Amino acid sequence: MKWDDVKGNNCSVARALSIFGERWTLLILNHASLGVTRFDHFQTQLGISRHLLAERLGTLVAEGILSKVQYLEHPPRYEYILTPKGQDLYPLLMAIVAWGDRWLDRGAGAPVEYVHQSCGHVMHGVMVCSVCGVELKCDDVTVKPGPGWDI
Amino acid sequence: MKWDDVKGNNCSVARALSIFGERWTLLILNHASLGVTRFDHFQTQLGISRHLLAERLGTLVAEGILSKVQYLEHPPRYEYILTPKGQDLYPLLMAIVAWGDRWLDRGAGAPVEYVHQSCGHVMHGVMVCSVCGVELKCDDVTVKPGPGWDI
Repeated sequence: MKWDDVKGNNCSVARALSIFGERWTLLILNHASLGVTRFDHFQTQLGISRHLLAERLGTLVAEGILSKVQYLEHPPRYEYILTPKGQDLYPLLMAIVAWGDRWLDRGAGAPVEYVHQSCGHVMHGVMVCSVCGVELKCDDVTVKPGPGWDI
Repeated sequence: MKWDDVKGNNCSVARALSIFGERWTLLILNHASLGVTRFDHFQTQLGISRHLLAERLGTLVAEGILSKVQYLEHPPRYEYILTPKGQDLYPLLMAIVAWGDRWLDRGAGAPVEYVHQSCGHVMHGVMVCSVCGVELKCDDVTVKPGPGWDI
């Protein structure tokens, strides 16, 4: 199988990674979740080439993860806003942050702290079961074919 | 900035993505979390080229995410086992699954269902605040410099 065929896989992980499993894409989405909306700001903050950035933003718009909204008519200028589908990637970003803070901090502590406005505390994300609320561990979960298995 | 420089960024997301932001790597880790340990099984199930698979597994071993363990002496055969650092990527995989099931199921429902052994129910992962336990939303979290900000 080639990478381009991964999207056709009957697996949610494969389908998802076919969209944001490219270099830069999750970094772009992380900056979007922090409030960056404009091409030049993404470009400056990420240091990515304009060509690659345009290509990645185009994919994210085509996939309905970002919407491209005109904010100035003369000259025409656009910003990129997270759609509900894009906002729903936040748990994924928080999972990356939590893991990176825990395992890649080089002993210096987290570069950035996250404050939950609801409770006012510095926190990290914890992945729990939607039914019982207990933290999920790899060896405590089994899989079985779901309704979309046989398509 | 080139992608190869991303690892040096003072950002947990960038550092993490420098490891598993490559094509295939998260798919390999997803299969590892489902119990796949052997080179040939990864290769068959993913349909990835042997060259790319060897390269990706090598990186994951070098980063301490998989450990390479000999299970046969003659001929020498190895398997790849998730380390604690690798097992700790499970929340990230569950976040990808939940998002893919929700947004990419093509109307057919989840291809695979996950059963939480602790409670016995089909469930999905929910990302909550480590302090108050409430589900995290993008617009309810702010950021500030952490202890590792100035390194």
